[in-house]
Amino acid sequence: MRTTAAVALEAGKPMEIMEVNLDGPKAGEVLVEIKATGLCHTDDFTLSGADPEGAFPAILGHEGAGVVVEVGPGVTSLEPGDHVIPLYTPECRECEYCLNPKTNLCQKIRATQGAGVMPDGTSRFSMLDGTPILHYMGCSTFSNHTVLPEIALAKVRKDAPFDKICYIGCGVTTGIGAVINTAKVEIGSTAIVFGLGGIGLNVIQGLRLAGADQIVGVDINDGKAEMATHFGMTHFVNPTKVDGDIVAHLVELTGGGGDYTFDATGNVTVMRQALESAHKGWGESVIIGVAGAGQEISTRPFQLVTGRVWRGTAFGGASGRTDVPKIVDWYMDGKIEIDPMITHTLKLEEINKGFDMMHAGESIRSVVVY
Amino acid sequence: MRTTAAVALEAGKPMEIMEVNLDGPKAGEVLVEIKATGLCHTDDFTLSGADPEGAFPAILGHEGAGVVVEVGPGVTSLEPGDHVIPLYTPECRECEYCLNPKTNLCQKIRATQGAGVMPDGTSRFSMLDGTPILHYMGCSTFSNHTVLPEIALAKVRKDAPFDKICYIGCGVTTGIGAVINTAKVEIGSTAIVFGLGGIGLNVIQGLRLAGADQIVGVDINDGKAEMATHFGMTHFVNPTKVDGDIVAHLVELTGGGGDYTFDATGNVTVMRQALESAHKGWGESVIIGVAGAGQEISTRPFQLVTGRVWRGTAFGGASGRTDVPKIVDWYMDGKIEIDPMITHTLKLEEINKGFDMMHAGESIRSVVVY
Ligand SMILES: [Zn+2]
Ligand SMILES: [Zn+2]
Ligand SMILES: [Zn+2]
Ligand SMILES: [Zn+2]
Repeated sequence: MRTTAAVALEAGKPMEIMEVNLDGPKAGEVLVEIKATGLCHTDDFTLSGADPEGAFPAILGHEGAGVVVEVGPGVTSLEPGDHVIPLYTPECRECEYCLNPKTNLCQKIRATQGAGVMPDGTSRFSMLDGTPILHYMGCSTFSNHTVLPEIALAKVRKDAPFDKICYIGCGVTTGIGAVINTAKVEIGSTAIVFGLGGIGLNVIQGLRLAGADQIVGVDINDGKAEMATHFGMTHFVNPTKVDGDIVAHLVELTGGGGDYTFDATGNVTVMRQALESAHKGWGESVIIGVAGAGQEISTRPFQLVTGRVWRGTAFGGASGRTDVPKIVDWYMDGKIEIDPMITHTLKLEEINKGFDMMHAGESIRSVVVY
Repeated sequence: MRTTAAVALEAGKPMEIMEVNLDGPKAGEVLVEIKATGLCHTDDFTLSGADPEGAFPAILGHEGAGVVVEVGPGVTSLEPGDHVIPLYTPECRECEYCLNPKTNLCQKIRATQGAGVMPDGTSRFSMLDGTPILHYMGCSTFSNHTVLPEIALAKVRKDAPFDKICYIGCGVTTGIGAVINTAKVEIGSTAIVFGLGGIGLNVIQGLRLAGADQIVGVDINDGKAEMATHFGMTHFVNPTKVDGDIVAHLVELTGGGGDYTFDATGNVTVMRQALESAHKGWGESVIIGVAGAGQEISTRPFQLVTGRVWRGTAFGGASGRTDVPKIVDWYMDGKIEIDPMITHTLKLEEINKGFDMMHAGESIRSVVVY
């Protein structure tokens, strides 16, 4: 079949909207009509050329929602008409990782996904002249139709709006999951969140959901405070307006440091501040943001020997097929909010403008609706 | 009263054996006759002058065992004749830290202990000319008699030999506790231990006690392998004899990395290797060794984002008054071994020779018996 996609032809160039060929689903695969997709910093990171593993031409996008159109041989858990959210972290439920409750990093199709192809080693996408186009993070939601492995699709309720729940495919789950799956924050905790963009806001609403008492937000932009307060932030700190050391300031503000701290900036200097502002004895710091290639985190080992713990999280520690449908329920039940974070809705033709707004800091989340 | 002590008069000089004055116990304090004391790297670190917090003159030593001679006003949990192990990490059972099961870092007397004095701000030790001598880590076990706060003494059974259980006051508890309190190693785990000195050997026997299946020991000295095997090591790796990257070698040997890895070297480069040889998805790495002043650990945040956890431990996460008596029982019941690790027994007059043997790598543990 043919479908319409935004194709990333090469690094550092705007994507081009074009008709592409899409082969039907092979064994264990599913053809999905994408109804909406969010624009995430990870797409931007790859498109910019900064991602050392980025390869082109490719169809980016990994934060979508849509409807199953056709299933390939052997697919048993989905049927045409099902509503689904693509999972860049799949859940095969049979690999060593899926069977270990300490991790969500299913390895079943990691090698082929990383190479931009389906598990059989080939791509379903091609140019009209036959040139293959790579998949991206196993999702390629910047195409109106895409093919994914069955294990990379979460089946969700049919009454949930695509243009909101697509965000659960990455940012919402990453932020909320970092709190509830990775940090396992307890009721009454004190927490500090560095970076109040889309991920940080979801960390904050995760903390509210988990019953944290004090939720400190840290951002160099005062303009972020209002929305963060809406989502549950109790104290705002702008490091550029603090006299002296930001870590000492935060330790004082929280009465000894955060029981849990979260880096949602991707900045390695901030990651260190997040660790060091965790409470002596028991504070845990979680790295969510993705740092630039080759960058390193550092600290004195004394920080760990005196009881701080340094962790990271990917996709919020969520097992997607199991956890994503629950988060959709939480949204539909009003336990979490998404709507205020979707600041812009675009057509596919406007997708490059969406990334321009991301760069300019004008959007929290832009969503393309097909 | 007067007692005999090895006094560290200044950094970088041998200690001098001399008579000193010792005031009796004040409120909440206990006078103890030390029967035996181990010589630990931490004493050596301070004596060398490398410890930025080291102050002189002081009576070092923090790994002892002895008998209560006299108790000060208000002491209720101990009486003369009780056998005790001094605790450089006390357990007051009422501070915010003692009441939090996630930490053992009692803060009740931290400030005064760090300053080398008793909780009332004064020292009990002085030269015969009246010059005050500082306490060290709240213990000063290089004196035949010493005064400690009640909360810094673990009461232990009377049939346990002082010249062996003194080692439980630091090295044994640090190593075994890192496994059972900090890492909480499960039966069947795979573990890697970097550094097969006294701490590393105790980590290894802790792993055996916890039921680990594969216990890999890493040391640049082949001579350490025999003793480590005796304590439970199943595989030995000498990094100087590995072709290529030691981390890749260990990941291969363990089928993906250690479920738990431990640094018992104090070397920050090794600490990084320990983290990076932990298993993707769930491996936890514990820093036990104390690094030199100003040294830092580093890694790529990707290591944490893909599921590794970086921790540290102090005194093996043990709450001393509660846990140390249990470890003494384990020793007396044959669940753990100490005797083969006590390679040298000295008189107080020979204490400087003991540190010379430590420097030469000739001893695992030297113990001074009074
Ligand atoms: Zn994303
Ligand atoms: Zn799996
Ligand atoms: Zn020690
Ligand atoms: Zn305490």
